[in-house]
Order: sequence, then C-alpha cells, then structure tokens
Amino acid sequence: MSTSKPNSDSTSVPPAVVNRLSLYLRELQHLISDSHETTSSSQLGRRLGFTDAQVRKDLAHFGHFGHPGIGYRCDELVTAIRSILGTDREWRVALIGVGNLGRALLGYRGFARQGFRLEAAFDSDPAKIGTQIEGVEIYDIAKMDEVLVKKQIELGLVAVPASHAQAVADQLVAAGVGGIVNFAPVTLTVPEGISKVGVDLARELEQVTFAVASRMREKENNPPTSPDP
Amino acid sequence: MSTSKPNSDSTSVPPAVVNRLSLYLRELQHLISDSHETTSSSQLGRRLGFTDAQVRKDLAHFGHFGHPGIGYRCDELVTAIRSILGTDREWRVALIGVGNLGRALLGYRGFARQGFRLEAAFDSDPAKIGTQIEGVEIYDIAKMDEVLVKKQIELGLVAVPASHAQAVADQLVAAGVGGIVNFAPVTLTVPEGISKVGVDLARELEQVTFAVASRMREKENNPPTSPDP
Repeated sequence: MSTSKPNSDSTSVPPAVVNRLSLYLRELQHLISDSHETTSSSQLGRRLGFTDAQVRKDLAHFGHFGHPGIGYRCDELVTAIRSILGTDREWRVALIGVGNLGRALLGYRGFARQGFRLEAAFDSDPAKIGTQIEGVEIYDIAKMDEVLVKKQIELGLVAVPASHAQAVADQLVAAGVGGIVNFAPVTLTVPEGISKVGVDLARELEQVTFAVASRMREKENNPPTSPDP
Repeated sequence: MSTSKPNSDSTSVPPAVVNRLSLYLRELQHLISDSHETTSSSQLGRRLGFTDAQVRKDLAHFGHFGHPGIGYRCDELVTAIRSILGTDREWRVALIGVGNLGRALLGYRGFARQGFRLEAAFDSDPAKIGTQIEGVEIYDIAKMDEVLVKKQIELGLVAVPASHAQAVADQLVAAGVGGIVNFAPVTLTVPEGISKVGVDLARELEQVTFAVASRMREKENNPPTSPDP
C-alpha cells in the first residue's frame, strides 16, 4: 500500500491521458504474452508512436512505477494501470439495443478480456426476446428496469436509435447504473456523478480525414516543385 | 478567401481538439435542424458539457468565426468545420472484414451523413463474396489490391481479426489508401504520411470505469459520515 496518494481523481487527469493508459495496458499485455518481463518508457513509447517523455509524464500522474536499472516490471505496471482504470475487478454490463452494432458488441472479445461481463441485453423485437446471442440472454426492453436492478448492472452500453437513446439513458440512471457508453449519434444528458462516454464512429474517420486533408493543404501551400534555394 | 492562414496543419493541433471539432459539428447540425440560425460559445458549450472558453479556444486554432453581436452563424461554422475536417468533400471508403462489427459498420448511417461513401467491402467467406449488404458489394479479399485501385479507395476500415490486421493495413497502404481506421485490438504500424486511428471499444469502457472507480476512491478517502467541523 502506498502512503502517498497521487492525484488520481477523475477531474484532474485529462481524458487523453486516461485513453493512453488503456493503450499502455494493451501493449504491456502484448509484451507479457511475448515473454517480456520488463520494459522501458522508450520501448513502450516506440511501440505506440509516443515519445518516452510522454509515457513518463502520463504515468507520473498516478505515481512512481519504474525501478532504477530495471525500468518497469510489466506485470507490476499492468496491475497498477488496471487498478487506476478500475478494471482490476469485473464490471457487470448490460447492452441496450441488439441491432447490427449491438450484435457486434455482444461478439466483441475485447470486453471480456478487460473484465467487462455482459450480463444482459435488451431489445423490443419479439423475435430476439428470450433468445441468446454469444451466450447473452436478450430480455424484453419493457422489463429493463427490473432486470437491471436484479442483475446489479453497473455499466450500460446504449446501442439504440438516436431518438430512443436519452430515454434509455434516463432508465439506466434510475436503475442505479453508474456509467454509460453511448453509441447513438446524439449527445446524452446525465446527472452529475454519472460517467458517460460517447462513441461516434464517424468521428474516428474525421480524425483521419483531418490529417489527410491537412497534409493535402500543406502540399498545396508548399509544392515540392522548386528545390531549396 | 482568407489571406491569413491559421496553423491548421495536423501536427500542431492536439487530437483532442480535432475530436471536439467533430462534436461541435454534430451539435451545429442538430441546431440547424431545430431551425437555429445562430449560436454562441456558451450555448454550444452548454449543450456538450464544455465551458464557453474551451469552445472559443478550440475554434481559435483555426481562425476567427464569430460575428460581433451575433455570435456564430450555424451554417457558416458548419462549412468551416467541414473544411477543416476534410469532410466538405466525399471520401471513398472500403471496409475489410464483414463479421458482426463489419456488418454494423456497413449499416451505420452516420458515415454517409458525414460524407463517407462505402464503395466496397472485402471478406474471405465464400458465402458472403458476391452478395450485397446494405447496398455495398462484398468482394473476395484475395482481389483486394486490384479493387482498391480500381475504385480509388482513399480510406480503409479494418475490421478483421487482430492476427490479420497488419497484413491488411500493409495492402491498403500499398494500394495508395491514405488513412486507416483500425477496429482490430492491435497497434498497427504504418509508414510516415499515412494517417491511422485505432478504435478499441474496451478503451471507451475504461474511460467510464476510470471515472466511476475514481469517484469510489474519493468516497472511500472522504467518507461522508462526519459533517464539516
């Protein structure tokens, strides 16, 4: 047990740092499965395309993890990051909306690997209700309130059409769910103290087109026709 | 045409700012469909949970968009942001891997709305090859090189298993694709000048669990049992 408690509360750490912690975690897990016992800021950074200074600075938000002359012990750092991210325990997750995206989420192996247990899914389609997909039971969305409470669901994945997303989020909050990941293309309003993240797949593409378009603009502004004077 | 070119090259703008630009764009599009002609930093910020200072600072990376006494003209700002993000034009997109997630991506309406045209999909399953899903033709992945070039694909969505993702990315790059959105849970290596974004759905959940776990830790450290002295 460390006595010096670093400032690891959610308000003081930028979301981008938390996002990179997840990346470090995945990379450390790959290193371990490749039989690496230790690593360094520069190795970790190089594998992910960050500088070693970035890696050190990110981890410094949460404490001191390196050992002089050794670097980081992979399993130790995995344990520390999982504790920071809250994935050193299992989370009881429900999926609301079993369309194509919902099915994809049910089949997504990455969730179980990081400790997310899909305990229930909900849909309004009578053809789906009562069946199982990827081992997860599909419940009638009309029974959501009682099933959420009975199964002690802690996190909800919202994969319903945009027009239904806010109502679903309200139900999740009312049932005591502490965090919501929203896949509907709409901004949800949740009370203070409830965590939410919005996943807009087109936004990921826009990150890429921004970079491609920026490079095109640079080329137009600096055509490579004339050599340096 | 503005003569002062703001520093909108991809290297100087943090990814988080680009990400928020996408959010502003969505919110402006909602405002327009709700018949709003103008908006302000504080209205835009309030709807998304940011401060007005944040909105102003983000937009200032790219130029001056407000009008004294009016605020932002919604359609003008939409046009500006789409130009910055590179989505003022259509992009020719291919999907590689038509599993559950691939199907979800084919059915995702948000892509078309932001100017992403899915021109082709690829899979190795003979039962899928030659069929159409959501109006998109599924090609044999063995013919990927020639189809990518023939269809002048500019962006690739990688939704194959992790073990195949790097090989697919290499093929995309060789065929002249400028940007890759990777949904496989593995870090891809691409040459300088190729844009890539990794989408790891468990990472989104970890953002949420980090916040929930942080709040739990705060409560443990500051139990609400004793009133202020």
